[in-house]
Amino acid sequence: MTLSSCYLFQGLTQSQIEQISVIAREQQIPKGRWLFHENHEARHIYLLQAGAVELVTKVEDSIEIPITVIRPDNGCVGVGALVEPYLYSLSARCLDDSRLLVIDKTELHNLMASDCEMRSIIMTNLAQKMLNRLKETRQEVKIHFMNLVRSVAF
Amino acid sequence: MTLSSCYLFQGLTQSQIEQISVIAREQQIPKGRWLFHENHEARHIYLLQAGAVELVTKVEDSIEIPITVIRPDNGCVGVGALVEPYLYSLSARCLDDSRLLVIDKTELHNLMASDCEMRSIIMTNLAQKMLNRLKETRQEVKIHFMNLVRSVAF
Repeated sequence: MTLSSCYLFQGLTQSQIEQISVIAREQQIPKGRWLFHENHEARHIYLLQAGAVELVTKVEDSIEIPITVIRPDNGCVGVGALVEPYLYSLSARCLDDSRLLVIDKTELHNLMASDCEMRSIIMTNLAQKMLNRLKETRQEVKIHFMNLVRSVAF
Repeated sequence: MTLSSCYLFQGLTQSQIEQISVIAREQQIPKGRWLFHENHEARHIYLLQAGAVELVTKVEDSIEIPITVIRPDNGCVGVGALVEPYLYSLSARCLDDSRLLVIDKTELHNLMASDCEMRSIIMTNLAQKMLNRLKETRQEVKIHFMNLVRSVAF
């Protein structure tokens, strides 16, 4: 995934993309290594360029629930770094040896503070994505609900 | 709820709030009347001033699942009007006779198009709220998951 193909940066000009590329650094992260943990301070956004990253959440400190697997064609992780209270909402672990573009939260906030159009476009893209994820997650709740209804009915 | 106490408009200047108040109109809606339906085109945002509004979703066209009840102190509904594809993600019905402030989507988009700071602040507030709702909804999925684990274990 390149910067310009990431949903967050859709609609930015080539010049704005170039400004973000200046603050993005490439990093290799081995299979099994955690990128970040749920509820920890969100300091970076990660764009996956090669490999795979699994997003998980824990219940009762012991059971891991898989949420989704991120691959180079479908997005970025760590967007908790974009809005208060700046916490990661899930944990992320490399499923394979991975190559990532890492964007520092503070540097991106500085760019957005000096370019209202950039901030406005990124935040609109983020709000739209979060609303879509919310719909998908509600869909899961519906499926659980229907399973419950069926298990009571029969 | 006044415009300035709605989460969407937190951080706007008094002058920006006044511009929005010019395009907001008050409406009385009787108990039992639908404000909007899931997946329909989102044309308005509603701020509740008195009464109560229930948000629901349907499964299999017949069963209604209650999602939440909105009261004058806790927010607004219809934010699908703010991001593409401009659809309501839930259905909303007045639980009591209600008084609402109704903001037309196109007029708000026109204001935001002419004031980048306003758009950027509203979209940041929206993204933050959607991320919070996503976390809450994931929490529900966790509870369903744990109930399932327990029902298999015993």
